[in-house]
Amino acid sequence: MTDSEASLKQQITELGDKIRQLKVDKAAKDVIDQEVAVLKQLKAKLAVATGEPLPASGGKSKKAAQFTLKTPKGTRDFNDKEMAVREAMFDTIKGVFRKHGGVTIDTPVFELKEILSGKYGEDSKLIYDLEDQGGEKCSLRYDLTVPFSRFLAMNSTLYQNIKRYHIGKVYRRDQPAMTKGRMREFYQCDFDIAGAHEPMVPDAEIVRIAVEVLTALDVGDFIIKVRVWPFKGVVFCKLVANHACSRVKINHRKVLDGMFAVCGVPEDKIRPISSAVDKMDKLPWEEVRKEMVDEKGLDPAAADRIGRYICLSGGEDLLNRLLQDEQLKANASAMAGLQDMQLFFRYAKVFKIADRVSFDLSLARGLDYYTGVIYEAVLVDSEENNKILAQEMPGQAKAPQDADESQVRLGSIAAGGRYDELVGMFAGSNRKGKSNNIPCVGVSVGVERVFSILMRKQKYEEIKANQTEVYVIAVGDGLLDERMAIAVELWENGIKAEYMFKAKPKLQPQFTACDRDLIPLSVIIGKDELAKGVVKIKDMQNKNADEAGGVEVPYTEMVAELKRRLGH
Amino acid sequence: MTDSEASLKQQITELGDKIRQLKVDKAAKDVIDQEVAVLKQLKAKLAVATGEPLPASGGKSKKAAQFTLKTPKGTRDFNDKEMAVREAMFDTIKGVFRKHGGVTIDTPVFELKEILSGKYGEDSKLIYDLEDQGGEKCSLRYDLTVPFSRFLAMNSTLYQNIKRYHIGKVYRRDQPAMTKGRMREFYQCDFDIAGAHEPMVPDAEIVRIAVEVLTALDVGDFIIKVRVWPFKGVVFCKLVANHACSRVKINHRKVLDGMFAVCGVPEDKIRPISSAVDKMDKLPWEEVRKEMVDEKGLDPAAADRIGRYICLSGGEDLLNRLLQDEQLKANASAMAGLQDMQLFFRYAKVFKIADRVSFDLSLARGLDYYTGVIYEAVLVDSEENNKILAQEMPGQAKAPQDADESQVRLGSIAAGGRYDELVGMFAGSNRKGKSNNIPCVGVSVGVERVFSILMRKQKYEEIKANQTEVYVIAVGDGLLDERMAIAVELWENGIKAEYMFKAKPKLQPQFTACDRDLIPLSVIIGKDELAKGVVKIKDMQNKNADEAGGVEVPYTEMVAELKRRLGH
Repeated sequence: MTDSEASLKQQITELGDKIRQLKVDKAAKDVIDQEVAVLKQLKAKLAVATGEPLPASGGKSKKAAQFTLKTPKGTRDFNDKEMAVREAMFDTIKGVFRKHGGVTIDTPVFELKEILSGKYGEDSKLIYDLEDQGGEKCSLRYDLTVPFSRFLAMNSTLYQNIKRYHIGKVYRRDQPAMTKGRMREFYQCDFDIAGAHEPMVPDAEIVRIAVEVLTALDVGDFIIKVRVWPFKGVVFCKLVANHACSRVKINHRKVLDGMFAVCGVPEDKIRPISSAVDKMDKLPWEEVRKEMVDEKGLDPAAADRIGRYICLSGGEDLLNRLLQDEQLKANASAMAGLQDMQLFFRYAKVFKIADRVSFDLSLARGLDYYTGVIYEAVLVDSEENNKILAQEMPGQAKAPQDADESQVRLGSIAAGGRYDELVGMFAGSNRKGKSNNIPCVGVSVGVERVFSILMRKQKYEEIKANQTEVYVIAVGDGLLDERMAIAVELWENGIKAEYMFKAKPKLQPQFTACDRDLIPLSVIIGKDELAKGVVKIKDMQNKNADEAGGVEVPYTEMVAELKRRLGH
Repeated sequence: MTDSEASLKQQITELGDKIRQLKVDKAAKDVIDQEVAVLKQLKAKLAVATGEPLPASGGKSKKAAQFTLKTPKGTRDFNDKEMAVREAMFDTIKGVFRKHGGVTIDTPVFELKEILSGKYGEDSKLIYDLEDQGGEKCSLRYDLTVPFSRFLAMNSTLYQNIKRYHIGKVYRRDQPAMTKGRMREFYQCDFDIAGAHEPMVPDAEIVRIAVEVLTALDVGDFIIKVRVWPFKGVVFCKLVANHACSRVKINHRKVLDGMFAVCGVPEDKIRPISSAVDKMDKLPWEEVRKEMVDEKGLDPAAADRIGRYICLSGGEDLLNRLLQDEQLKANASAMAGLQDMQLFFRYAKVFKIADRVSFDLSLARGLDYYTGVIYEAVLVDSEENNKILAQEMPGQAKAPQDADESQVRLGSIAAGGRYDELVGMFAGSNRKGKSNNIPCVGVSVGVERVFSILMRKQKYEEIKANQTEVYVIAVGDGLLDERMAIAVELWENGIKAEYMFKAKPKLQPQFTACDRDLIPLSVIIGKDELAKGVVKIKDMQNKNADEAGGVEVPYTEMVAELKRRLGH
């Protein structure tokens, strides 16, 4: 149990005692009610912190107690309004991916267990296995990269090169922390370029794609200010031009490996030390250093040398400075990496993204399969960003399971890198001993985090979940068959239409349905209209636009008039 | 092992012996090669029949033998061309769903095991469980209906009524039979109307939606002919009007229960007898009767009485005849069902779908949760249909795992019904003892079958997987940075563009890329064009439309000219 859980439980116990005492003391009802409300909030917080369910339907269901009415730990439903926002987000992303020639493939949600084995380092323990029900041993996919590599290895004759995107769910049996948006089931949204290509060209295009996606999503239509680097004394404060929503941190595995060697990290400690460096985003340098020295047995002098390098970040200027560094010059791996970075900056300028890119030596992603450039897009620590992030998730009151998602930290909103050897691990080599390998580079957009930002940027009640354009309304006698017939006429003309499933509905509930579902227009009929062969059309969002009862239109002109108003 | 597997293995053994003998006899190489080719085909067939993998990359991978390079049994990948067809299919379906006011929700791919328990009768054994890794017991969802009901029960205060659609993967640990398109992972595509509404109105609209979807998908733009009923002597031969792709079989659970009672089926045998009737689509009446009498212990006279009813199908005429049937009249359940059917036919006429609907007493779906109308859309047994279904799956040669999907049977392409008690099973009742139940009716489109029909209706090589509009080509010196800069210009103007990731590509490979990816236009540059400040634009699909080298356009007018040609 974490401290905050323990503290929550403590508070709940104490508040419970207090309420009981208030009741004994016959305190005023509103005083007690207020305390009970606080208690409920605390319990909701605890439920979210521990990933446990809230009681369904406000605890009313007596009979349902036999079921635990919830989704599994670390998973959640998305309701109709949330899905409208998510689908718009996915469509925007797909639009950018397709602009760059992207095609999509689909792979199963689970893979043979052995396909996933040995790909994720320490994180392999987070893989979900399926029960062995007398068949193959299978696991839910952990990301979309390994399945893609497996696909390429299986289809290498057809796909020597491909730009593929994939939007799909992945699974990690992590301790869920909804406060951090960390779930056990979540979407990934990847674009990868596979194939042996001109060095650094696809790498730069991938970063350009990430910039385009984040700009199109308008995640950060803010003023960009300063980012304070999380370790003491070093402030990262490059101003990024107006409208730039994010900056892409770039590093290169070879530079990092070279740097570690130069600093005196023994070969066998490079991976563990690299994973310690990866924590620089969350921990102060002192703690990272402590992990290196105390836990991983690194010579303190080597740790200090690392400290001097990994505080470095900047643009081409830094790159040029490092190219002059005598110690790095003596290291082939570091020099190869720096030369690649030079090439990268050249293409970044052609792609007009150089001002969004910061060369950052602290960046070291945890996954084992990266072999070249690695990058990460992060929201900058601006006042505007923090203001949006501090807002409550809309619809929260209605969806208690979100109650504690109100705190989305600044952090990674896209990440990726080059993995040149993963396909080869699956594909092996051909008869002539030539490897069937296919080099790859890709990016994954952090759509769950982006989603929670987008939700905060709009009013929950203004999200239109349906796309209905016209509601068919009866005044007076119900006219069910007549309303249905009009709906048929509209559907057959490509107009999205609904009507109330009731033989004799009153007028008000029909108007209410239009309001609730944000339906722009209505077709209104009554006995008189039917007799005259007309209908009335009414603007339901701007109710003063038409006469109170709507504008009369001959039935034969109804479809044309609706289409005109809808801009079809 | 099935007969056909055994027979395949037998053939393989015999052919192997034959080939060895031919080699011993020093037969001509082409004779041996021919036999080897046949042997390979047999092995591929066997692999598909048993769901076993084919060797990857044509068996070339020596080192890869340590991995079994395949997807799990009963699952498959979809490549870029297949996905282009699938996404277009899903978009078409969503379009219809949204026309009827549908909204979408998302639920996790796995649910708590107890949520799924007791919902699927005998088929519960097909549920995939996740391994118990020290958490909750979870299972992969078996359909989208039970998760939807669970969602409604959890959110009943917000969603007393909703029209929701959901397109997502479901999982069944069935014996995969790719020949029948039966997979362990497949998509379902559901539309459901929840809420207490006017009787039979949502039911009829759901059927209207199914008809609209199947028409929009153009699954059956054929001449409709005769459907031969699978049991002897009875031919179902209602001609359905021109263009009608499918007929929707309708039955009503209450009619069926009433009919069974009238026929003398004891209460406790109604469910098992119902599931026997469900096999009428696959087995002749004699075998169904045998199952009823021998296995399920039904009185033979009762079985014969059932036989007389379940051969009945037709339109309103049949309905009216049954309403006069003295035995049915005496049965309250049957009469209630028949009266609902009367109402259904009334609304079906308003919805203009009555000619597509056949009242069919043999229809009995297997799932336990249906409580009212049940229906199933089936392809009719027409010459045209059979011609398309008999075609090979395109791209087959390239994707060996599809080798045996060449036989798609006539069968259900959409199905559904009313389930009024499922939500109540989760929701329980409120404090006043009033049930929190929400009645529902829905349809599930058989998208996997539809997909395999759509694939057969087009040429594999004509499927455009990407959406790229312009390819930027260099003549002569490579001009990589210049090509990249033009691509940036196009992307920033919303034009989908690619170029070759190569410093100095030859002209022909760039033209080949346009042909392969069906890219309509190219922008061509060389040293001369750069010097003059122009580009050349060329129609790549109709190469004679422009001069051989393309039409010269000033750089400043490039975007406008491309947009004009692309119809932006």
